[in-house]
Amino acid sequence: MLEQSASRGDIAELMAALGRNARQASARLATAPTAAKDSALDAMADAILAGRNNILAANVIDMKNAEEADMAPSFRDRLKLDADRVKAMADGIRAIRDLKDPVGDVIAEWSRPNGLKIERVRTPLGVIGVIYESRPNVTADAGALCLKAGNSVILRGGSDSINSSTAIHDCLVEGLKKAGLPEHAIQIVPTTDRAAVGEMLKGLDGAIDVIVPRGGRSLVERVQSEARVPVFAHLEGLCHLYVDKSADIDMAVKIAVNSKLRRTGICGAAETLLVDRDAADTHLAPVLTALAEAGCEIRGSDEVCARFDKAKPVTEADWSTEYLDAIISVALVDGVGGAIDHIARWSSNHTEAVIAEDPAVVERFFNEIDSAILLHNASTQFADGGEFGMGAEIGIATGKMHARGPVGVEQLTSFKYRVRGSGQTRP
Amino acid sequence: MLEQSASRGDIAELMAALGRNARQASARLATAPTAAKDSALDAMADAILAGRNNILAANVIDMKNAEEADMAPSFRDRLKLDADRVKAMADGIRAIRDLKDPVGDVIAEWSRPNGLKIERVRTPLGVIGVIYESRPNVTADAGALCLKAGNSVILRGGSDSINSSTAIHDCLVEGLKKAGLPEHAIQIVPTTDRAAVGEMLKGLDGAIDVIVPRGGRSLVERVQSEARVPVFAHLEGLCHLYVDKSADIDMAVKIAVNSKLRRTGICGAAETLLVDRDAADTHLAPVLTALAEAGCEIRGSDEVCARFDKAKPVTEADWSTEYLDAIISVALVDGVGGAIDHIARWSSNHTEAVIAEDPAVVERFFNEIDSAILLHNASTQFADGGEFGMGAEIGIATGKMHARGPVGVEQLTSFKYRVRGSGQTRP
Repeated sequence: MLEQSASRGDIAELMAALGRNARQASARLATAPTAAKDSALDAMADAILAGRNNILAANVIDMKNAEEADMAPSFRDRLKLDADRVKAMADGIRAIRDLKDPVGDVIAEWSRPNGLKIERVRTPLGVIGVIYESRPNVTADAGALCLKAGNSVILRGGSDSINSSTAIHDCLVEGLKKAGLPEHAIQIVPTTDRAAVGEMLKGLDGAIDVIVPRGGRSLVERVQSEARVPVFAHLEGLCHLYVDKSADIDMAVKIAVNSKLRRTGICGAAETLLVDRDAADTHLAPVLTALAEAGCEIRGSDEVCARFDKAKPVTEADWSTEYLDAIISVALVDGVGGAIDHIARWSSNHTEAVIAEDPAVVERFFNEIDSAILLHNASTQFADGGEFGMGAEIGIATGKMHARGPVGVEQLTSFKYRVRGSGQTRP
Repeated sequence: MLEQSASRGDIAELMAALGRNARQASARLATAPTAAKDSALDAMADAILAGRNNILAANVIDMKNAEEADMAPSFRDRLKLDADRVKAMADGIRAIRDLKDPVGDVIAEWSRPNGLKIERVRTPLGVIGVIYESRPNVTADAGALCLKAGNSVILRGGSDSINSSTAIHDCLVEGLKKAGLPEHAIQIVPTTDRAAVGEMLKGLDGAIDVIVPRGGRSLVERVQSEARVPVFAHLEGLCHLYVDKSADIDMAVKIAVNSKLRRTGICGAAETLLVDRDAADTHLAPVLTALAEAGCEIRGSDEVCARFDKAKPVTEADWSTEYLDAIISVALVDGVGGAIDHIARWSSNHTEAVIAEDPAVVERFFNEIDSAILLHNASTQFADGGEFGMGAEIGIATGKMHARGPVGVEQLTSFKYRVRGSGQTRP
C-alpha cells in the first residue's frame, strides 16, 4: 500500500495507471468466453474459502483500529467478518456464476424491406468504478458482478476496511489468474488517500464508464455532485405506502408492518404512511395500532394525532426524512389523487406502494407516479434485485438514464447493432 | 426576443424559468394519452403548411443576414427553406405521428415464485435540451420526436436561423394548444446570447435530463466537455470499410463507392478503406479504380501507392481525419485481425463495415469491434435511424450509456417497474 504521505501528483499518476490497466483488461474481457468468466468466479469462491484465515486475520486488524477509533457499534457490525460471513461471500460469488451471461444476448432483432437483418446485442459497459464504505464483502460482490457482465472494475473501499478488502481482493485475483483472465480485471485502489476518490470521480482520463457509490448519504451526495462520469445511485429511499379506502384491512396492517419494520435500515423501508381520508374511521386505527405495538414511533398530522393518541405531532421536515429507524410519518390524504400529490412533492423516486382492491386506483397510482419501483398489495421491502429475480445487484438507481431500480448484471451492459446484408447499398 | 444586451444574470433567470416550465409540462405530458399527442402532431403539421408564408418570410430575413455576413454556400444551403422543404417538415411530423407511442410499452414481464408479477414499462425521459445550428427544420423534427415520447423539450437553435426557427416554433405551439397539451411542452430559447447555452449545459437546476447537440464538431465538442448532464451525441463518424480476401469483388466495389460517395457529408460516410493484404492483387485495384473514376481522391499507404498510381501518400493524421469529402485513406492489413487492430486504434466507435463471404471473418469482426453499428456486406451509409426502421432519429450516439447508435423515439424513454402482488410481505 502507498504511504499516506504520497503527493497529489503521485496519486493522480497511480490512479491513471489503474485506469489504463482497467481499460486494457476490459478489452480482453469483452470477448472472454462465458466458461472462462465462470471458472474464474468458481476459483474466486474457492480462494476465499481457502484464504479464510488470512481474511479473518486482516479483519481483526480493521476491527481493532475501529475499536480504537471508537466507531459506533453499527459501523463495527458492518465491518466485522466471521466464518459465516466469509462463507456467504463465497456463496454469493457462486450465485453470480450461476446467472446467465448477458454479453452477446440478442435483445431485439428485425428485418428491413431491403433485406437487411438488424440485431441489437448486449455488450459490456466497459470499466466500472465502485466506491464503498465499511462493508468488506462489497469487494467480492461488486468484483464478481462486474466480471460476469464482462466489465473490469476499480474498487475503492473505505479506509477502515482496507485490510479486509485487500485480503479479499487477493483471492479474486487468484481466481482471475487461474482462469487465464487478466488480473487487472478487478483492481483495488492501493491507498486510503481521499484524493484517489477525486481522481475516480473525474473518470481517470475517460477510462471509467460509470461510478457506483455504495454507502451512506454523504458518500452518495459527494459522488453525485462531483462525478464527471455517469453515476448509478440513489441518494435515499424515501418510500411511501398508500392505503386506499378499498384496501383489505388485514392486508394493509400486515404490509405496513412489514414495509416499515422488517428491516428499518434498508433503502426499501417505508418512511411515510398515507391513508385515504375516507378510510380514516376504518383503516387508520388498525394499521397504527399494529405499528405501535410492534415498537414503531408514529408521527402524525393533526388529524392523525386527533384519532390516535400514541401519535406525536409530525413536522414539515419529517416528510423529507429517511428515518432508517422504527419511526413513521403519517398523513390523511384525499384518495389516490392526494397520495399522488404528496408523493410528487416528497418522494425520492425510489419505491412507493399502494394497498387497494379498486383496480382504477391501482392504475392511477401506477401511471401517475414516476418512481423507479411501484408496488400493488406488496411490501416496499421487495425493492431489491434479489427479490426481483435478478440475482445479485450492485445497488438501486433512481436516475432515469440507462439503469433504474435494481442494478443487476443486465444493467451493467451496453449494446451494439449488428446488421447483416447481401450487398445492399443505400439509394 | 430578448435584447442581446441582457446581462448574465437575466439570462440565468430566463433560462431557469424555461427549465421550470419544461419540468411542469413534462409532468403533464407523461400521462398524456397517445391520441392527444397525435392530434397535436397533426395540428402542428397543419399549422406549418398554413403558416408557410410566415416561415418563408422569416427565412428570407435569416438568408439576407447570412448573405451579408458572407457565410459559405454550404451553410446557406442548410439554412435555406423553400416550399418543398416546408412541406417536408410537415410530412416529417406526420411520419412521427404514425410511429408507435413508446410510453406505457411493457418491455419485459416475469413472475416470481412468491406470486409477484413484475413489469418493466417505458416512461418518458423527462426534459430534453436540443442545441442545434443552422438547419431550421431541426426545430420541427426534434420538437415532434420529443413530444411523441412524452418529453418536453427546450430548443436552442443557431443564432443565424433564429427567425426561421421561431416562426416554425409558433406553429408547433399552435398545435399543442389545439390538442389541449401544455404549450411549454416545446419551448425555444428566446435569445441568441451564447450564455443561454452555458446555462443549458449546467442543466437548469436539474430540470434537463439529457442534452442532444445537433451540429458540427465544435458544437459537439463544447457540449461534451462542458455538459453537467448526460449527452446523446457522436463527435465524429470515422467509419471504416474492411474488404476481406473472401469478399465478392463486385460487391466490394459497389459497397465501397456507395459507402464513400453516396453522400460524403454525413456521419455514416466511410473515411478509411482497409483491404486484406491477401486480396491486394485481386480486390484492391478494382475498388480503387471505381472510387477514383467516381471522383474520389485516394490517399494510400506506401504499399497502396506502389500498386495504384493515382494514389497520393497518406499521412498519420489521415487515419484520424473525418474528411466529409470525396477523399478516402487506404491501407493493407493482415486479414480481419489487422482490420480489428487498425479500427481499435483509430475508430470513433460509430460505424464499421466488413465485406466478406467467410462467416468466421464476419463473426470475429462483429464480436471484437465495439462500435455502435457493425455491418456485413452493406454500405456504411445505412447508419441512420430511418434506415434502421426507427422512423425519425434525433441523432446518432456513440456513448455506451442508455442510447447508442440511432436515437429514435424509444431511446428518448426511460422505464419504471410495476409490481403486482396479493398481500406479499418479505420474509
